[in-house]
Amino acid sequence: MNYKIVFYILGKVMMFLALFLLLPCIVAVIYHEEAGIYFAVTAVVSFLIGFIMSRKKPGNKNFFAREGFVVVALSWIVMSILGAIPFCASGEISNPVDALFEMVSGFTTTGASIVPVVENLSKCILFWRSFSHWIGGMGVIVFILAILPMAGAGNMHLLRAESSGTNVGKLVPKMKATAAILYVIYMGMTLIMLIALALSGMPLFENICTTFGTAGTGGFGVVSDSAASFTPAQQWIITIFMFLFGVNFSFYYLIIFKKFSQAFKLEEVKWYLIVYLGVVALIAINVISTIGNTMGGTSDTVRHAAFQVSSIMTTTGYSTLDYEMWPEFSKGLLILVMFTGSCAGSTAGGIKISRFIIAAKGMAKNIKQLIHPQRVKITKLDDKPLSDETIKNVNNYFLVYIAIYVVSMLIVSLDKFGFETNFTAVAATLNNIGPGLGAAGPTESFADFSIVSKLVFSFDMLIGRLEIFPILLLFMPSTWKNK
Amino acid sequence: MNYKIVFYILGKVMMFLALFLLLPCIVAVIYHEEAGIYFAVTAVVSFLIGFIMSRKKPGNKNFFAREGFVVVALSWIVMSILGAIPFCASGEISNPVDALFEMVSGFTTTGASIVPVVENLSKCILFWRSFSHWIGGMGVIVFILAILPMAGAGNMHLLRAESSGTNVGKLVPKMKATAAILYVIYMGMTLIMLIALALSGMPLFENICTTFGTAGTGGFGVVSDSAASFTPAQQWIITIFMFLFGVNFSFYYLIIFKKFSQAFKLEEVKWYLIVYLGVVALIAINVISTIGNTMGGTSDTVRHAAFQVSSIMTTTGYSTLDYEMWPEFSKGLLILVMFTGSCAGSTAGGIKISRFIIAAKGMAKNIKQLIHPQRVKITKLDDKPLSDETIKNVNNYFLVYIAIYVVSMLIVSLDKFGFETNFTAVAATLNNIGPGLGAAGPTESFADFSIVSKLVFSFDMLIGRLEIFPILLLFMPSTWKNK
Repeated sequence: MNYKIVFYILGKVMMFLALFLLLPCIVAVIYHEEAGIYFAVTAVVSFLIGFIMSRKKPGNKNFFAREGFVVVALSWIVMSILGAIPFCASGEISNPVDALFEMVSGFTTTGASIVPVVENLSKCILFWRSFSHWIGGMGVIVFILAILPMAGAGNMHLLRAESSGTNVGKLVPKMKATAAILYVIYMGMTLIMLIALALSGMPLFENICTTFGTAGTGGFGVVSDSAASFTPAQQWIITIFMFLFGVNFSFYYLIIFKKFSQAFKLEEVKWYLIVYLGVVALIAINVISTIGNTMGGTSDTVRHAAFQVSSIMTTTGYSTLDYEMWPEFSKGLLILVMFTGSCAGSTAGGIKISRFIIAAKGMAKNIKQLIHPQRVKITKLDDKPLSDETIKNVNNYFLVYIAIYVVSMLIVSLDKFGFETNFTAVAATLNNIGPGLGAAGPTESFADFSIVSKLVFSFDMLIGRLEIFPILLLFMPSTWKNK
Repeated sequence: MNYKIVFYILGKVMMFLALFLLLPCIVAVIYHEEAGIYFAVTAVVSFLIGFIMSRKKPGNKNFFAREGFVVVALSWIVMSILGAIPFCASGEISNPVDALFEMVSGFTTTGASIVPVVENLSKCILFWRSFSHWIGGMGVIVFILAILPMAGAGNMHLLRAESSGTNVGKLVPKMKATAAILYVIYMGMTLIMLIALALSGMPLFENICTTFGTAGTGGFGVVSDSAASFTPAQQWIITIFMFLFGVNFSFYYLIIFKKFSQAFKLEEVKWYLIVYLGVVALIAINVISTIGNTMGGTSDTVRHAAFQVSSIMTTTGYSTLDYEMWPEFSKGLLILVMFTGSCAGSTAGGIKISRFIIAAKGMAKNIKQLIHPQRVKITKLDDKPLSDETIKNVNNYFLVYIAIYVVSMLIVSLDKFGFETNFTAVAATLNNIGPGLGAAGPTESFADFSIVSKLVFSFDMLIGRLEIFPILLLFMPSTWKNK
């Protein structure tokens, strides 16, 4: 482990964080809020520590997968701890564990909250929560692009599987150029959404926070009823943009470079759309045929279904209604898309559609081999051969995921809640969604869980956001050895 | 597909079934029950059809994995359909779907019932339900020993993973001799249990049915309260024998041949014991510390925990109390062992401990490779190298299992029940346990589910019992091609 370079990069990250912390200061000045002072102090402290840590460029430039994973994991942890200080210091979220939970939820773009009534928070705090989603969403793009491909040959397949984003790297030789283009896409889409919501008549502050929450597929809102009080037009805008931020950014990249045929061949994007439309249709039919028009007319039901599936599948977590009232089958479908998530290479969480595609192809291959052991057929993804190594790594990802899931659920079940609550609360945090069902449902908060459970959820949010391995490696002694 | 040989073997199976059907006839004669006539008629019809089907030995003796899987799958289906006729014809379970469900539950050693009050059934029907468990348990042993190893080289690893039972084949060159020894073990253990329960003062009929249900790890009882009204001594006897029938039969085999060091090195058996004792201890502590002595003293709590974990983990399904009253953490642990199941090569269902061991070793290997891509270390199971092929097949098993689980749950959620009920009802049938939680709990029955759900459960019981692939292959067109 090259400690010096890890130290150096963490210093840089803290200096960046200090810059980000200035924005809520500005918000506080505009709204004359005292809480702004805590952001300013945290920014100064963060900058100073970061400056000292990154003063000297390390001589040893060795930076491999191990260093990359550790830097990413520690960055998210350090940012969450520092970013939580203003919550705590201002007394608006006084319990340190609660403040940490809220900040982890922000940077991991989860959106699960321990604040029952968000209207009680000051504007600068609300802004910081939403802004952290946007930073987190951007951070994931850096992570996918800059850190993951650093891993050695043995892992390249895993990483390619984790994100078609790495394929993008082949188009533009220089990583920095690719990153810059992805940032432009991210910021451009954010800007378009801001304009669209402004045109719909949404007030600026609400607009900015909602847009940040959508772009990062986070889900923190500035009103307790989430998106329920927005106009139908605003709800449709959010629906569409949540969906768009869940698309693999390679798609936009290819479109920009006019590689249309390649763009429309991306299997993940195709299946993302199919699953989305299929689930919306099934839920709309199920709701209308079961509880009829008790929740508005057909067009309202379709709007709610389109919004809710987009929100849960992209792991954003906004809601336009209490979907607990939906019939069991519809809730089951929502739970299903909690796990699929959206595309790799997007800002969304969850297991990712591409992993399901790869796993399904692996299954089909395995079953075919059972009948015809001799006939070997090459499996393909996006017209490229899909190696057994990739399939193995994806399958392994599923199993490690399940193991973390089960252990989390057992610990959380020591609390007073029932099976449905525990099951979906873990799903909502591990997949970076936000709300689950039952006592963790869209109209509730995570406030009533025990401290132990909140720590488990925080851990799950981090491990889910960073696709498990970076966090897992922190716990392995061999990660920390010098050679 | 060699249709003639499949046809021939199915005929033989039907003749065997006819023989088995004579036993409930004898019970009917003893208790002067009219229902016996339906068993006699079914036996005669079954024998005649079977006789005609297997009259001519097929010339083409080609019998490969494909034929083996198809024969096994069809045998279980045909036996379930024929065996359900007396239920239906006697009017005691008049709905054909219910009768089929009950019989599938019997032969797959599940023990889930659609009969709310079993005391209303005649003795011969009760006997047939319990006896079908014993036949099913025996059938699984044949299946593991005779059919699985037939699969070609490409699948041998999968099969070895599915059951260390195949390792036994190496000790005795002739398959028939091995099968005979396993039958002797199975029958010997059944007899010892009969004697033990007789000494405890259990009436003969109850004794025989309970022993059959335990040996096959089935769970059908002859009283509605399952094992609650048995004496503590009887409950302990059942606890121990459920556990013993969940041990990999290779263990007994090795013991008989005095290969003690090999026997005690079996990792699966070791982990089976560790998980069992661990879960019993955790539940006992959790129950006592949460709800104290409301369910009897400490020794009672330990007895119930030991019984219930043994029952659920071996996928038997008897109960001494309504474990719904236990705290959420204990119920979570029960749900966990619903999935682990017991050892491969036993009569128990579930995913099997060995698959978890192999998957865990695969995970550990994969994570180590992430840090040190160069260092290749050989993974071992029972001191033998564990191939990547085996790990791959086990991982694939998990994924196919989950896919079936999710689809089943979605269909079942069209019924009126909640998440916990649906989740555990699928777990209880796919793992061949019997009772789940909620409306599928130990004090309830499956009577209130819709016909569609009952068919899904029947399918899940079959697919779970036959370890997925034999049933899955039935749905693949290439299975039925001539070449």
